[in-house]
Amino acid sequence: MADNLILLGHGSGGLLSHELIEQVFLRHFANAALAPLEDAALLEFPGSRLAFTTDSYVVKPIFFPGGDIGKLAVCGTVNDLAMRGAHPLYISAGFIIEEGLPVTELEQVVASMATTAREAGVSIVCGDTKVVEKHAADKLFINTAGVGAVPDQIDVSVGNARPGDSLILSGTVGDHGMAILSQRQGLAFRSSITSDAAPLNGLVSNMLNICPHVRAMRDPTRGGLATTLNEIAKSSGVGIEIEEGKVPVSEAVEWACEMLGLDYLYLANEGKLVAIVPEPEAARLVDAMRRHRHGREAVVIGHVTEGHPGKVVMRNAYGVRRVIDVLASDQFPRIC
Amino acid sequence: MADNLILLGHGSGGLLSHELIEQVFLRHFANAALAPLEDAALLEFPGSRLAFTTDSYVVKPIFFPGGDIGKLAVCGTVNDLAMRGAHPLYISAGFIIEEGLPVTELEQVVASMATTAREAGVSIVCGDTKVVEKHAADKLFINTAGVGAVPDQIDVSVGNARPGDSLILSGTVGDHGMAILSQRQGLAFRSSITSDAAPLNGLVSNMLNICPHVRAMRDPTRGGLATTLNEIAKSSGVGIEIEEGKVPVSEAVEWACEMLGLDYLYLANEGKLVAIVPEPEAARLVDAMRRHRHGREAVVIGHVTEGHPGKVVMRNAYGVRRVIDVLASDQFPRIC
Repeated sequence: MADNLILLGHGSGGLLSHELIEQVFLRHFANAALAPLEDAALLEFPGSRLAFTTDSYVVKPIFFPGGDIGKLAVCGTVNDLAMRGAHPLYISAGFIIEEGLPVTELEQVVASMATTAREAGVSIVCGDTKVVEKHAADKLFINTAGVGAVPDQIDVSVGNARPGDSLILSGTVGDHGMAILSQRQGLAFRSSITSDAAPLNGLVSNMLNICPHVRAMRDPTRGGLATTLNEIAKSSGVGIEIEEGKVPVSEAVEWACEMLGLDYLYLANEGKLVAIVPEPEAARLVDAMRRHRHGREAVVIGHVTEGHPGKVVMRNAYGVRRVIDVLASDQFPRIC
Repeated sequence: MADNLILLGHGSGGLLSHELIEQVFLRHFANAALAPLEDAALLEFPGSRLAFTTDSYVVKPIFFPGGDIGKLAVCGTVNDLAMRGAHPLYISAGFIIEEGLPVTELEQVVASMATTAREAGVSIVCGDTKVVEKHAADKLFINTAGVGAVPDQIDVSVGNARPGDSLILSGTVGDHGMAILSQRQGLAFRSSITSDAAPLNGLVSNMLNICPHVRAMRDPTRGGLATTLNEIAKSSGVGIEIEEGKVPVSEAVEWACEMLGLDYLYLANEGKLVAIVPEPEAARLVDAMRRHRHGREAVVIGHVTEGHPGKVVMRNAYGVRRVIDVLASDQFPRIC
């Protein structure tokens, strides 16, 4: 079926559906929980605290430098679990496919999901396929939900930041957003910009081993670093101050932002995290993060303040402070 | 915002997104796990066996006699968990919205999800909203994933049917499929046909209390009763024989099928189940099912055979047997 296009019948529950499930999904996602194709997968669950999350992915285009919609879908859900201090265990995958999508494109996405799941150490244990008519969807949408186990002593929440805490960023900002944008607009920059999409649970696991008292973590996806920091400030009822010169950004992204009049603080990231940690533990944590391949450029970019609760302030090289607000709406749709 | 239309910005992660989340989603889905809007909900999980399932819903139209896409999304996922003998606990909700959808329509769907979740005793604990441009989706797609706890002694699986077992159907077939079809085509039948969409976990709970040894259960959705029975026959390596005269079907659905040249055995159901049970327990189970409002017309429609493994056979009033096969593709797309 490799030369074929997806037909409405592939979403019907009949023989065509079974063929697609066996030849594409089961082949790549092979595991004991998925294989019997029951109405629900039956799984071992360790412990008594469960983390549960979901995200739909509608990124356009579905293939882009550094990844594709499938890699994004697995990373995004793994990361949302990791941000609560959970060990990601199981992922579900719901596909909404536009009639006429080449089966080879679907298979490339599915293979990418399988590879990313292996890297993250999670299993894709249940799924669903729907096919809609031409022009009723745009190629392919994917929903992933994820389940993880949260160790007893862990309490990571955007509501836990306290004045005096340090704010760590795991690496450069804006790579994913700019990669999508440049691909979509056919822009060519001096050096190629690739998405940072990556599963962060390994990095988080190292961090929590060293410092179980990490207060808050979040991956700055839609709305970028600026929006994420505002969410933490509001949820915790604290102020946040960051230093402009310390926020890592690649030369290529910075240059592209200048050219296009965009602010990298609002560009989406898919393989970065911000962590709010007790100040005395920050240096040791940053050291540990830098030893992990997804945290090589980790750095303290600011701290939590008692003043200006609910607000994020950025101080530039001249000591001038300005408020970093949440935008009414993001700069671009369908970035993830 | 009640008079407004959904804008691309409502899916951006910025202020418009927050407004939508607070005024529509949080207002209807109010619960302690969802309210903090963390990256993942943190939940108590009882026991060590977890059931996990997902389904996307693309039904067209999104409102139909007897329900809407929201009711369908909650029922479908609750039922998939119940079919494994799990107690459904938590539901995720991912919305993909076409730009321009009236906010009132979204809110009506969300309210319906909340009502159905209350009926089923589950909480909608995490969610996601994406908005795509006009013509990049058709009004509204919803993905729900669900998590449930499976009691230790329960082992319900489509692989467990054994020769001699009885086959129970919980009520009339074809109501959902025909309701969607008639709404879509603007057909008016003598009496109105409404979707049977309903959460079946209460019925299943009663069944398992009386007979913990129910072997297999499945809700005959896409592909209808015929496809579901074939799946059980294949998974268990047994034959299934049903009696045509015993399959309950409403007069209106039967008449509509005759008029349109359709077979109700292949029409989707969203509030029915088939159960394979040890023959000595069948009569007692049917009695108990009939006392539940979603099982009033429960009846034994056939039995499991050692002969013709993997095949489903229907015997008519004259004793003539014919094979009930799986169709290559369903009769209609976007039925759920």
